Amino acid sequence: MPVEGVRIGLDVGGTKIAGVALAPDGEIIARTRRATGWGAVAVIRGIAEAAQDLAAQAGAAAGQIRSIGVGIPGLVDADAGRVLHAVNLGVESLDVGPQVRALLNAPCHVENDVKAAALGAAALHGDREPMAYLNIGTGVAAGIVIDGRIWRGARGTAGEVGHLVVDPGGRLCGCGQRGCIETLCGGGAIARAWARGGAFPVRDVLDAADAGEEAAIALRDDLARGVSAAVRALVLSVDVERVVIGGGLTALADRIEPRIRQALRDDAAESPFLLSLGLDERIELLPASSPVSAIGAALLGADVAQHTPLEKEIIAHG
Amino acid sequence: MPVEGVRIGLDVGGTKIAGVALAPDGEIIARTRRATGWGAVAVIRGIAEAAQDLAAQAGAAAGQIRSIGVGIPGLVDADAGRVLHAVNLGVESLDVGPQVRALLNAPCHVENDVKAAALGAAALHGDREPMAYLNIGTGVAAGIVIDGRIWRGARGTAGEVGHLVVDPGGRLCGCGQRGCIETLCGGGAIARAWARGGAFPVRDVLDAADAGEEAAIALRDDLARGVSAAVRALVLSVDVERVVIGGGLTALADRIEPRIRQALRDDAAESPFLLSLGLDERIELLPASSPVSAIGAALLGADVAQHTPLEKEIIAHG
Repeated sequence: MPVEGVRIGLDVGGTKIAGVALAPDGEIIARTRRATGWGAVAVIRGIAEAAQDLAAQAGAAAGQIRSIGVGIPGLVDADAGRVLHAVNLGVESLDVGPQVRALLNAPCHVENDVKAAALGAAALHGDREPMAYLNIGTGVAAGIVIDGRIWRGARGTAGEVGHLVVDPGGRLCGCGQRGCIETLCGGGAIARAWARGGAFPVRDVLDAADAGEEAAIALRDDLARGVSAAVRALVLSVDVERVVIGGGLTALADRIEPRIRQALRDDAAESPFLLSLGLDERIELLPASSPVSAIGAALLGADVAQHTPLEKEIIAHG
Repeated sequence: MPVEGVRIGLDVGGTKIAGVALAPDGEIIARTRRATGWGAVAVIRGIAEAAQDLAAQAGAAAGQIRSIGVGIPGLVDADAGRVLHAVNLGVESLDVGPQVRALLNAPCHVENDVKAAALGAAALHGDREPMAYLNIGTGVAAGIVIDGRIWRGARGTAGEVGHLVVDPGGRLCGCGQRGCIETLCGGGAIARAWARGGAFPVRDVLDAADAGEEAAIALRDDLARGVSAAVRALVLSVDVERVVIGGGLTALADRIEPRIRQALRDDAAESPFLLSLGLDERIELLPASSPVSAIGAALLGADVAQHTPLEKEIIAHG
């Protein structure tokens, strides 16, 4: 049976495009996944094909698509629907919104992928508390949601806690600073510090740490310390109620989550002030396959306030 | 000639109560200043007498006072008009709002003094850009104003950037952590690190640094480095457009401001990312006598959106 008012959300990553179609009540009624092409033309084609695939699965004709949302890495001008400097996609500047709209005859909203994921993670809870989504992937950045809306800040650097310096004697960051949070817990920085290659260097670090190797234990400690610092930065500046942690790191959630909580407790052990904040109870790691970014993209342009809260179960395991 | 709709604002500090009366157009029409008493009874009496003094100066009878706002250090429950843990005032818990309302028969709003000052500093500009007021006094904390309103966050720790750790090998902070921003630039921490007594230790440090003393130069560098770190934390998390710096430090603004700007430039020198943020142009130091906290207190409960922007001139020099 065809569904009206389908919202399509696409998470365009460096290697794959993951997508969902949401029914008006927020239920996921279709999913898709395909490799991302390289360069502007291939990226637009991949988005269009993924959207058409989802619409077909959902039994929605073109006119029944309420909106297409695209979460994409890079600097996004949401008003113009444009992405800049999406280096992992081979895109310098691309008018995603206007092009997808013209191709598929449906409204298209474009957002930075981490900000889109933040919206998805906020919908996961369905409450209105200020929250942050902390993405620990190759890099480290957070999206902030206040009152059901993405908080953009004055110039688009809201949530860039990955580049706060927490150790002036620390490792050099790609941003040019030394000892940024990202140098401690970003996947790219860990791979560089480990410097032994391999397809999954963070997993290799954890394995070596388990085997007692000192250098690996230090990197594993850094990882937990970096995430702890990012959580503190978000709570002591924006004061979010909750920090939902996602990104590539979550593939190792079982092994890392207890260490992050322990780092938060250790850091608070000598500080009644920090202890009173209960930080270890305010974080939550997403399951590895949680499609929060695609779900958040699907919600772009929707008035989240009027949305049925999405079922946690659907988002986490749907 | 009596003025109707006078708003009274009081900044209740550890040593003095400073107050202003604002005409409906935001102009300062009266000012007062008196020593703060010790303990609950004396604090309430001081507030009531200061308010009456301002009302008399403004020629406003009791019924013509539109509101009394009180900015006060400590943990404030704004809804209840209650302050907790105002240790510098000898107050553990005090229902300021209800008591002042009963005494003077006028609406009374109570707010943490830094948050009140943030509102005053935002009114100083009259624009609607997200901004922060960074108070560098004995301690270090910021108030954040978004869309003309104080941003409280989820649990009241918004703007507590003074307790972000930026150097794990740093000095011990009163909060129990090591290397907090406050250990670098808080007046209390500088006095403890200087450890030579004196009525104005930060000024002594600057004098000794000018004379070439190494320990003093290190403390002076720390000061600029700490303020720079606080500014970065506010921009990379909340992304405020502007950071207005106030507090006791501003008594030394001429000697410190260039060093803070230089620290912001130095920190950005190796980082195109930081450099692009133009942080050194986004800060502003208030003149030492700027009564932003009293002005902000006077604006508590007012719909700032509908206010005539206060004249910069009036606030800075009024």
